[in-house]
Amino acid sequence: MSGFTKIIQKDLDKLESSIDDLLSTRVGYIKEIVTYIIKSGGKRVRPVLVMLCSKLCGYRGKKHIPYAAIIEFIHTATLLHDDVVDNAKTRRGLSTVNTVWGNEPSVLVGDFLYSRSFELMSRDGNTEILKTISQVTTALSEGEILEIIKTADLGTTEKDYYEIIGNKTAVLFGAACEIGAILGGRTANERKALRNFGYNLGIAFQLMDDVLDYTSYNDVLGKHVGTDLKEGKVTLPLIYVLNSAGEKERASIESALAKQRITKQDFNRIRRMIEKKGGIAYTMDATKKHLDMAKKRLDIFPASQYKTALLELADYMLKREM
Amino acid sequence: MSGFTKIIQKDLDKLESSIDDLLSTRVGYIKEIVTYIIKSGGKRVRPVLVMLCSKLCGYRGKKHIPYAAIIEFIHTATLLHDDVVDNAKTRRGLSTVNTVWGNEPSVLVGDFLYSRSFELMSRDGNTEILKTISQVTTALSEGEILEIIKTADLGTTEKDYYEIIGNKTAVLFGAACEIGAILGGRTANERKALRNFGYNLGIAFQLMDDVLDYTSYNDVLGKHVGTDLKEGKVTLPLIYVLNSAGEKERASIESALAKQRITKQDFNRIRRMIEKKGGIAYTMDATKKHLDMAKKRLDIFPASQYKTALLELADYMLKREM
Repeated sequence: MSGFTKIIQKDLDKLESSIDDLLSTRVGYIKEIVTYIIKSGGKRVRPVLVMLCSKLCGYRGKKHIPYAAIIEFIHTATLLHDDVVDNAKTRRGLSTVNTVWGNEPSVLVGDFLYSRSFELMSRDGNTEILKTISQVTTALSEGEILEIIKTADLGTTEKDYYEIIGNKTAVLFGAACEIGAILGGRTANERKALRNFGYNLGIAFQLMDDVLDYTSYNDVLGKHVGTDLKEGKVTLPLIYVLNSAGEKERASIESALAKQRITKQDFNRIRRMIEKKGGIAYTMDATKKHLDMAKKRLDIFPASQYKTALLELADYMLKREM
Repeated sequence: MSGFTKIIQKDLDKLESSIDDLLSTRVGYIKEIVTYIIKSGGKRVRPVLVMLCSKLCGYRGKKHIPYAAIIEFIHTATLLHDDVVDNAKTRRGLSTVNTVWGNEPSVLVGDFLYSRSFELMSRDGNTEILKTISQVTTALSEGEILEIIKTADLGTTEKDYYEIIGNKTAVLFGAACEIGAILGGRTANERKALRNFGYNLGIAFQLMDDVLDYTSYNDVLGKHVGTDLKEGKVTLPLIYVLNSAGEKERASIESALAKQRITKQDFNRIRRMIEKKGGIAYTMDATKKHLDMAKKRLDIFPASQYKTALLELADYMLKREM
């Protein structure tokens, strides 16, 4: 990603090789699909958080590497199931697993990744981490379901939106950071601080994702711009505009969301409306606010290269183009 | 199911009310779908096994009830994901969740059930049970994937078949029984005996299921007879026939399996072939053999009303019509 990963580069390299070991299975077909999706160039943001937070908390063991892998597996499982739910065609610039192999393996390999994650955690036997992660995976499924309930719903409020992204994205960021505190044997207060750091960072990450879905002309996200609108996802840039939209504008947005196939013209019309009315600026502002909240949570930790890296990672969120 | 559940009837009643408590969620939509599928009259075979085996092992606490519920949740999650994978229309005589609500909630509510199960187990903190169950859910996904790999594959061997049903069905039966031994604080040897009892019972259960899919004229399974053939599942009755089939018969089976929509004539032709060539008798024989193996595993336990009930449950497998 950037400079802040340099101090954990060795661990990140170990992560890549341990992923293969941890996913060993006698079913070659699973191996093939899992390798395709896990090795397709994810940003490894969540593993980086596990590692930096572990180090921040003075953890000197080796378990942060398998736990970083587990967090990535859980994230990958949600992607596989999401792509079935959204009927998505591409991700990270590659065809999705459901496009190449069909819905069946997407569902089942996702299940395999969830199960293997719990198998690895159970074997390690840290019930604090198990409790944290199992609560998170429940929240993930609730968040995804809230999101489909609110599909194409112009009545989606900011509160609804934050509940959805909190559950579907931020809780996993929170857990990734909290694992560091648990491994480091830190106090409840420090655990909470890191969980909140991760949660707010996750909110900011998702806000930027939702901005980029409207602004990233160059397709750098590896998925087509306008995906959210096409899938009927009412995100903050759109919610902001809807709050001040006249009847005619609402109707125009409504008709675009209702369409099975949104045209480029529809998308560009709504994109312009969002930019003009300040939906992008508003969402960027919310991103900054959450990043500030996140960074403030690190105040209780003394200065260290790991703290600096986490602060840099937070700043990077705002600059990222993918 | 039958007489052998009478001695645990109070616990079975408690199970039904605790299911509601254990699945509490702020998302009403999840509640609705979960209630629809869990309350749609499953046989509760797996919970009965948890309960009878716990009692057999002298367990006197109350945890066998939530653990029985958890085993049923995991089973239900696999049904939800199966129905997406198989694109099934009905189950237990009712429309499937994917037919009523779509694939999205089927996938996500399945995820919710898996996650909530691990959440409940993590909260209890019994790492032996956690290890057992997480290994099982990994095997379940592997079994399901093996099954789709072998779809419509006339080269499917008996060994392949037993590997598939072992993973997709029998391991969960095994775990249900093993939980009883773990809760009762029994020796490794007794744990293994109960796990093997459950495993062989599960194999027999699946063998009967696969027989009934060809013979249950009255649609008592709550799903249409001939589902396996329609879905391209090459089960033991068919494998047996294929082993001795001439070229013409093989070609006729092959063409039926390859069809998107199998006709009633196709099905009846293959059903008659299977009956005539002894595929049903062969599979019933295998069922009996596995039930005998299962029952033998209980030899090390002294006589008790719970042992009697478990032996009766095994005998019931052969008689069941649904």
